[in-house]
Amino acid sequence: MKYNGIITPMLTPFNHKGEIDYSSIDTLVKYLKSIGVSGIFPSSSTGLFPFLSTNERKKMLERVLENSGSIKVFAGIGAADTDSSINLAKHARDVGANGVVLMPSYYITSSQEWIINHFEKVLKAVDIDLIIYNNPKTTGTNIELKTLEHLKSNYSQVLGIKDSTGDMRYFERLLFLKDSNFSVFQGEDDLMFISLMIGADGGVCAISNFSEDVVNLYNSYTSDDLEKTRTLQKRINGMMDILLLSNFPAMFYYAFYRKFNIKGGYRDPMVRPSKKVAEKILDFIKVV
Amino acid sequence: MKYNGIITPMLTPFNHKGEIDYSSIDTLVKYLKSIGVSGIFPSSSTGLFPFLSTNERKKMLERVLENSGSIKVFAGIGAADTDSSINLAKHARDVGANGVVLMPSYYITSSQEWIINHFEKVLKAVDIDLIIYNNPKTTGTNIELKTLEHLKSNYSQVLGIKDSTGDMRYFERLLFLKDSNFSVFQGEDDLMFISLMIGADGGVCAISNFSEDVVNLYNSYTSDDLEKTRTLQKRINGMMDILLLSNFPAMFYYAFYRKFNIKGGYRDPMVRPSKKVAEKILDFIKVV
Amino acid sequence: MKYNGIITPMLTPFNHKGEIDYSSIDTLVKYLKSIGVSGIFPSSSTGLFPFLSTNERKKMLERVLENSGSIKVFAGIGAADTDSSINLAKHARDVGANGVVLMPSYYITSSQEWIINHFEKVLKAVDIDLIIYNNPKTTGTNIELKTLEHLKSNYSQVLGIKDSTGDMRYFERLLFLKDSNFSVFQGEDDLMFISLMIGADGGVCAISNFSEDVVNLYNSYTSDDLEKTRTLQKRINGMMDILLLSNFPAMFYYAFYRKFNIKGGYRDPMVRPSKKVAEKILDFIKVV
Amino acid sequence: MKYNGIITPMLTPFNHKGEIDYSSIDTLVKYLKSIGVSGIFPSSSTGLFPFLSTNERKKMLERVLENSGSIKVFAGIGAADTDSSINLAKHARDVGANGVVLMPSYYITSSQEWIINHFEKVLKAVDIDLIIYNNPKTTGTNIELKTLEHLKSNYSQVLGIKDSTGDMRYFERLLFLKDSNFSVFQGEDDLMFISLMIGADGGVCAISNFSEDVVNLYNSYTSDDLEKTRTLQKRINGMMDILLLSNFPAMFYYAFYRKFNIKGGYRDPMVRPSKKVAEKILDFIKVV
Repeated sequence: MKYNGIITPMLTPFNHKGEIDYSSIDTLVKYLKSIGVSGIFPSSSTGLFPFLSTNERKKMLERVLENSGSIKVFAGIGAADTDSSINLAKHARDVGANGVVLMPSYYITSSQEWIINHFEKVLKAVDIDLIIYNNPKTTGTNIELKTLEHLKSNYSQVLGIKDSTGDMRYFERLLFLKDSNFSVFQGEDDLMFISLMIGADGGVCAISNFSEDVVNLYNSYTSDDLEKTRTLQKRINGMMDILLLSNFPAMFYYAFYRKFNIKGGYRDPMVRPSKKVAEKILDFIKVV
Repeated sequence: MKYNGIITPMLTPFNHKGEIDYSSIDTLVKYLKSIGVSGIFPSSSTGLFPFLSTNERKKMLERVLENSGSIKVFAGIGAADTDSSINLAKHARDVGANGVVLMPSYYITSSQEWIINHFEKVLKAVDIDLIIYNNPKTTGTNIELKTLEHLKSNYSQVLGIKDSTGDMRYFERLLFLKDSNFSVFQGEDDLMFISLMIGADGGVCAISNFSEDVVNLYNSYTSDDLEKTRTLQKRINGMMDILLLSNFPAMFYYAFYRKFNIKGGYRDPMVRPSKKVAEKILDFIKVV
Repeated sequence: MKYNGIITPMLTPFNHKGEIDYSSIDTLVKYLKSIGVSGIFPSSSTGLFPFLSTNERKKMLERVLENSGSIKVFAGIGAADTDSSINLAKHARDVGANGVVLMPSYYITSSQEWIINHFEKVLKAVDIDLIIYNNPKTTGTNIELKTLEHLKSNYSQVLGIKDSTGDMRYFERLLFLKDSNFSVFQGEDDLMFISLMIGADGGVCAISNFSEDVVNLYNSYTSDDLEKTRTLQKRINGMMDILLLSNFPAMFYYAFYRKFNIKGGYRDPMVRPSKKVAEKILDFIKVV
Repeated sequence: MKYNGIITPMLTPFNHKGEIDYSSIDTLVKYLKSIGVSGIFPSSSTGLFPFLSTNERKKMLERVLENSGSIKVFAGIGAADTDSSINLAKHARDVGANGVVLMPSYYITSSQEWIINHFEKVLKAVDIDLIIYNNPKTTGTNIELKTLEHLKSNYSQVLGIKDSTGDMRYFERLLFLKDSNFSVFQGEDDLMFISLMIGADGGVCAISNFSEDVVNLYNSYTSDDLEKTRTLQKRINGMMDILLLSNFPAMFYYAFYRKFNIKGGYRDPMVRPSKKVAEKILDFIKVV
């Protein structure tokens, strides 16, 4: 199996009490199908998975699968301890997810040895497609190339990587690992143009939770319309600059709620964006 | 209430299956009483609290309280989401802990606004002494002085801070906040001598899980034996250099297991230290 | 004037006493002409310009100009204080250099205000084409986009930028400034493929001091042979990995001396590469 | 010889054309004698030595020596290349300086091997007391403890270190090297209290260019008046917070010029502080 295109690291809609708003998940999934993303990734970082209970994560995955149709569903199975990830992986397999996404443990910084132990225990316990997720900003550690090569060459389930380092030097070296069974995804929305130009298979782009720009960017690229690709990238960069004025990922939630007229909430300790900053995003929402 | 002395950020003993070994908790608590620490802090970073379930954390706290006697018990209530911390704080209060220790949310980096929201929701929900824990290495964010001053001046329950930044410039400014109801603890074992010399109330020192050196250092300082204080600091520094040759906190577990002849284990993804590195710690264990 | 292609940040050949070896400059210039670089940049970082006296720098520039033929010559005029840069710029203009390359002051970290002052004083004093050089690793400061835009829009002499940040997010934004009078050069040899793919005009590549690989890479790209471009990038990456095993830029000197059988030296405090590391480069030299 | 007390890293007074104002050097030296510093260090970082020509540095040193009386004079001999440092060291010896201060090469980051080469070449060439200056913020590299121990144990001229890392973990380890022939100086004004409390011999404090607070702090400490020491440190911290609102070291120049009613200037690219920021320093100047 070879994956590509734009995968949405799905946010987790909350109501004003901070509880998961399952009906808004349906709204989001319906929207994602309409704009043509290739995959949905619940329990992502944007989805604030560490703020959710295991039961909430399982229930959310099931809800996504009810409506996902032909879109691939990749269940986030990240956890600080390995057993929790195995538990989530088994559930994902049992309920029919297409694959899972796993990052190294967090809070306590992992060595490469810990990373290998973490991934191998999950890979040996559950037979399901797995995408490796590298994000040093949240885990405090980088997955070194030799660690990645080890996992890729020893486990045929390992089908790709989502890289959120923002380091194109590293990303280029990832592309040298790309083959017919291993996909390389860019995890930073503002690096999509560069990444596609040098051979990325696609992106895991948070902005697709409420904007089709990045899907259009991907389609422009595959249609060889580089000028349009570049123009869309510029617009996305402008949007990202504004979204990150409030602490990640609050602004993505605000934009989603406003676009779909949802009276949503923010699970603590996430705080809703200030009015001043929030106003700046409204122009983009209208354009979309 | 004014706290001081050495508080032990308790490790969580595991058996070879990676399950919590409750009887070894008794061994550890008995040891800590014998060497004269002033407090015990279960569900600490050394205790790998993000690897534990809520039930495990509650049961462990109860087990500590059964044997703690006159030693103060500070329950770690850290969690990525605020509600989980509130839940743990209520339990700590109900089972009779002396206080709780709370750090900012993690994985997703908190802004100062998120930090204030996180702490205030907990402080308003539960009336129990609270020590603020600042550790940018694990949470990705520093608690700024004005955030700290806000919490300290508005909530009389806030009785101290454990600082693990390793930044003495910041630590000195913390000491300017010290008063009869607010204690400042150093969280880095190798900075105890400096910290006490400029007025720290004590330390939260992982090394006390298996060594009385740091308790002796504290007692030497309060007895005005600066030469002995300095000598002990040098020995502790040497020990720390070795302990951190393996990924934190594996070596602390190894040292504890060896000192008490426990056949302990390592919850995944933590990996036991390599033999080569482990051998280096044995001399210190014998000396202790 | 619009510049492009590969510019060589020329190393400064030394003899065994650490004096400049002017005849080896001729050897190097002759080689650079033979492989087809578009420009030569004496008094570069690779050329260790801060280790050279003003007189040495002037004499070296004159020597280069004697043999450079149709290749463009860009004189490095970097200095900690602005007046020294003005002095060097006037000399460069007077002896017929095509342009100059200037970076912010160093040792003391510059603010954006200092950067603007530094560049404006030089630009107002001397009328000659100027390429801005951004290298936070050596100057401790990044030239912000708005600083760059200010200089570019107010001074028509500003004809390009050499970016050595290694940050492609920044580099992509530089490319949005590219126009018919402003060229964007990549300063990191291992990022040439990516940079050309997204529109860079060329590179300032230290490896061209002894290898034609990067010139071939550029030519492959302009001939639309992307497969060859990528293959050459992979080889260059391998070479860079080895070159940087010794402290920059000693290995570039070693490679140059060996390739041309020069009994060269290393001005203090630069130290010649260890034998063990040096041996690794010999295979590459032979291949070239 | 054993050095201690407060050494002034002397600023270089300029006139409005940016030329050195030698008569204001006399004013400064006279002031430093009056407040009781133990040493003067011309060609310091505060003195912007990389902005000065070799001749200016020599002439300035000679001018300082004319008026220094019993105060020790330590000539800064920092340079990017080793030969320039040797040249300056010989001059310092010949004109009767008490010692020299040397840091690693800069702009190009030095390895430990380069550092050792740099210092050894100077130490072998000139017999004069030498203080090692460690400042990774300006040189890009840290002098490792084993490098320092190597230099200290092999060269009896090496009589001390000025540490500007701001890292007290490192500083404490320096103090373990202190002996009757090796002094440890703190280079950060706001860390003087901590440093003296754990055994520092003194400080190299830029604030003494226009304020006697830090001399008073030192004297309070040696008189065992810890409360006054702490109070002075707090005031110094407040002053430093303001001084560093403009790019180092412009505000030190402004404060000096205002205190002594000198119509001074700022050598390019240094820019004079903005009015808004400058006003904040005036209260401190009056207090002094």
